[in-house]
Amino acid sequence: MVSSLRLPALTSLFSPSFTRRSTVSLRRRLHLRPPLAAGFSAQSAASSPTETEDRVDSKKSGRVQDRGSTDRVITPRSQDFNAWYLDVIANAELADYGPVRGTMVIRPYGYAMWEAIQDYLNVKFKETGHSNMYFPQFIPYSFIEKEASHVEGFSPELALVTIGGGKELEEKLVVRPTSETIVNHMFTQWIHSYRDLPLMINQWANVTRWEMRTKPFVRTLEFLWQEGHTAHATLEEAEKEALEMIDVYTKFAYEQAAIPVIAGRKSKVETFAGADKTYTIEAMMGDRKALQAGTSHNLGQNFSRAFGTQFTDENGLRQHVWQTSWAISTRFVGGIIMTHGDDAGLMLPPRIAPVHVVIVPIWKKVDEKTGVLDAASSVAETLKNAGLKVKLDDTDQRTPGWKFNFWEMKGVPLRIEIGPRDVSSGSVVISRRDIPGKQGKVFGISMEPSILEAYVKDRLDEIQSSLLQRAISFRDSNIVDVSSYEELKEAISLGKWARGPWSASNADELRIKEETGATIRCFPFEQPQGTKTCLMTGKHADEVAIFAKSY
Amino acid sequence: MVSSLRLPALTSLFSPSFTRRSTVSLRRRLHLRPPLAAGFSAQSAASSPTETEDRVDSKKSGRVQDRGSTDRVITPRSQDFNAWYLDVIANAELADYGPVRGTMVIRPYGYAMWEAIQDYLNVKFKETGHSNMYFPQFIPYSFIEKEASHVEGFSPELALVTIGGGKELEEKLVVRPTSETIVNHMFTQWIHSYRDLPLMINQWANVTRWEMRTKPFVRTLEFLWQEGHTAHATLEEAEKEALEMIDVYTKFAYEQAAIPVIAGRKSKVETFAGADKTYTIEAMMGDRKALQAGTSHNLGQNFSRAFGTQFTDENGLRQHVWQTSWAISTRFVGGIIMTHGDDAGLMLPPRIAPVHVVIVPIWKKVDEKTGVLDAASSVAETLKNAGLKVKLDDTDQRTPGWKFNFWEMKGVPLRIEIGPRDVSSGSVVISRRDIPGKQGKVFGISMEPSILEAYVKDRLDEIQSSLLQRAISFRDSNIVDVSSYEELKEAISLGKWARGPWSASNADELRIKEETGATIRCFPFEQPQGTKTCLMTGKHADEVAIFAKSY
Repeated sequence: MVSSLRLPALTSLFSPSFTRRSTVSLRRRLHLRPPLAAGFSAQSAASSPTETEDRVDSKKSGRVQDRGSTDRVITPRSQDFNAWYLDVIANAELADYGPVRGTMVIRPYGYAMWEAIQDYLNVKFKETGHSNMYFPQFIPYSFIEKEASHVEGFSPELALVTIGGGKELEEKLVVRPTSETIVNHMFTQWIHSYRDLPLMINQWANVTRWEMRTKPFVRTLEFLWQEGHTAHATLEEAEKEALEMIDVYTKFAYEQAAIPVIAGRKSKVETFAGADKTYTIEAMMGDRKALQAGTSHNLGQNFSRAFGTQFTDENGLRQHVWQTSWAISTRFVGGIIMTHGDDAGLMLPPRIAPVHVVIVPIWKKVDEKTGVLDAASSVAETLKNAGLKVKLDDTDQRTPGWKFNFWEMKGVPLRIEIGPRDVSSGSVVISRRDIPGKQGKVFGISMEPSILEAYVKDRLDEIQSSLLQRAISFRDSNIVDVSSYEELKEAISLGKWARGPWSASNADELRIKEETGATIRCFPFEQPQGTKTCLMTGKHADEVAIFAKSY
Repeated sequence: MVSSLRLPALTSLFSPSFTRRSTVSLRRRLHLRPPLAAGFSAQSAASSPTETEDRVDSKKSGRVQDRGSTDRVITPRSQDFNAWYLDVIANAELADYGPVRGTMVIRPYGYAMWEAIQDYLNVKFKETGHSNMYFPQFIPYSFIEKEASHVEGFSPELALVTIGGGKELEEKLVVRPTSETIVNHMFTQWIHSYRDLPLMINQWANVTRWEMRTKPFVRTLEFLWQEGHTAHATLEEAEKEALEMIDVYTKFAYEQAAIPVIAGRKSKVETFAGADKTYTIEAMMGDRKALQAGTSHNLGQNFSRAFGTQFTDENGLRQHVWQTSWAISTRFVGGIIMTHGDDAGLMLPPRIAPVHVVIVPIWKKVDEKTGVLDAASSVAETLKNAGLKVKLDDTDQRTPGWKFNFWEMKGVPLRIEIGPRDVSSGSVVISRRDIPGKQGKVFGISMEPSILEAYVKDRLDEIQSSLLQRAISFRDSNIVDVSSYEELKEAISLGKWARGPWSASNADELRIKEETGATIRCFPFEQPQGTKTCLMTGKHADEVAIFAKSY
């Protein structure tokens, strides 16, 4: 039954008209964009005239400014990265400013990206032995003061509740900036003996940090995150856990978000307030600034000593537990936008995209409309049944040209166009978001469900890995190996990341920050072979560090 | 292949020893507990001597007090419902008190129940056209003041942030008690024309209400919920939406939580602060008090007028939108505990249970251990592969008897026991949580995967519907039809719900509350036929109302 259904479609695949197109397009499919290292030149949809122009009613100039009276223009990314970022967030309806300074409303399209992050990580956390739970967000102020470096790090950023139920409170309450203190308060009640260990939990929650300079997703007064907290009987177990979780984040970044982060250890200066060691994943954004995209902390016994979180070991002795904490937040959504977007707007890796495929039906005459819409619905149904997220944009209040630009701007990985000629030939036209214009467009893909489904899924896989490869090339061509402070300064002044051997002091590290604006992002886990000489002091160094300006 | 694998097992199914047992147990499986209307007499595991006693090493007295030095006793439910509730929450590790008065830490086992609620509702919300998003929790104080009845209802319960980043704030911030105000502030920016409607969103979030009398899950200072918010072009659409969502909640309560809620409309006195109409689902707890388990509000134009949320209709006229909001919270977890639990502890409907099946391996001699544990692991694997949530309790630090009581107390629907004799016969013993003692126990269920899987799934389905049927019987035998205030008072004094025709004044309603402690829970959607005479005034009434004491 299936094979007989396939036959006509396979035949049409080699019909003369298709062959002409497909030869060209097959070549084009292999023709990726030039390496991004060549610079982010403008590549708007407008700059690539496409076959679309003779297919649609009123192709506008191709830029988003034609979207109507309430629409805004997207600043080209190459012109002003920050303005572009804010324009994309507004136009793609990812987020909006809340009424309180520094707060953000996460709109459905942006929230769906966060849900994709949650869905993946939530499974991984459970697979690695963690249970979800929930701690109250109000923390007695005295808790924050118990761990010395913690209070120093967080007290300038706290939001405090001082009135409850109409009355002044005896002790003011901290709206959680992170939960180590309240977690330890509870762990102390739950942990008695070594049999209660390891205790491994996670919570999905909102947190508040009174940031002065905010930016949607990247740094907001309130944000959403997950925070894992674990307690172990030994330092070794805690260290293993902290490393395992940074590895979960690294795999997530590469495989789902197509972001080739560099994983490593933070310098002492950059370590979390209350941790012995902080591991991090650092991502290079499109403007080549670094984004700390996730961290995992080995807390040692700092909090267990402050809160008296002890257990009786197998020999009957009381010991303080060894702990970790680790987090990824809605900041990661900002990282995805700034890694993959281009002048036309968002560009989403399929595994994060709220919509995999948008279908745009195209008709000129009224008598064409029904046939085109029927075919479009049927294609949508086919792809939905295949488990894909599909949007059929069948409004007649917008032109196909407008829709092309709009969904490109929203970063949808694939677009399917269906016009009257496609209906006759039982085929569709498919365009890739990551390859603009003619190059990314293939004609005559059969509508036959199994062929279409396989084709679309293959293209989504290709886009997923193509975005990652592109980001890897971009990253690698923007990291400079340096062996002196002069070379470091030059690299940073060119907007690049500098990688060089480092064994100098905290004071030297702070001086670099002051003089160049760059900080040590991490000592990467992957270290070059051979002996190393500190770029600052000329003395022996065990490791190279990566320096960069960051968000 | 499959059928040949099945053959040996099917044969053993009719072996002499099994037949003897299964005849008995099949009868027992049809033998439900006596109707709960007969009263909640003590039915602890201890009161029903079971076959277990000759199977295990050291069956203790059967009560939870034997769990060890840190364990507490569960007060019998029949003796003190409130003490029982708190004991269950502590012993089953559902929740714990937070350090701030009235706050609650939701522990993994309790949180998993909330996740089961979320998983189901999240799908239903999306199927009915809603998108998830996220609004900031800090709301300018001035917003709350804009809708007159809203501020009156919520201002006594607010938590206020007055200090941020070390500075006194110019305007104090409300930690959201609910989000209608900030939602309308944003809707006003997003809604321009009828084309932007309906706008249908939902958020999963924490909310804060400064409650003075708190109780875990039922009423806490901070709780978790989902809040849906929609805007429509017409009153009719908003009304339809409000009703559709209370219907989603009703189906959830019946089909997932096995709670036979009564859905209806709130009286004016009990309507949400800011709504025109409030629909509710009311559940009867084990102590026969009512729990408002979910609400859906038709907000009319109250908030759109207060915030100026307008759209241009198809005729070019500016109109205020019509709105709804609806919510279910972690309170529902309390409702599940208080509906189904018994003297032995929790009893969970399978569709909410964090663990469907607990497996307890039983051995006396060391040389039996490996065989028993291997069989137990293999059974666990079989059931996990069938998509069930399985816990294999193979610790040797506790006796099987202790484990039986512990997992009964945790409400796990099915227990599988595997001893050396079961290993030899290739079968297991299965006990139902909802039928205590011998009655709920069946011997000789084949370990053969397809048989075991089918048997377990059938039993889970039976338990799910049995819990619902039991709760329906209990509810119906505790609702009294009344036709006078005297009858109403008598019913309430007996701890029952009173149902009677009502068309009296708000003042009369408040008087009943004062004199009896009961309030109108709802005017149920399902109304009896025939003419009705108000129980209070003797005048004509359109509807019957349900009166009850409530949480």
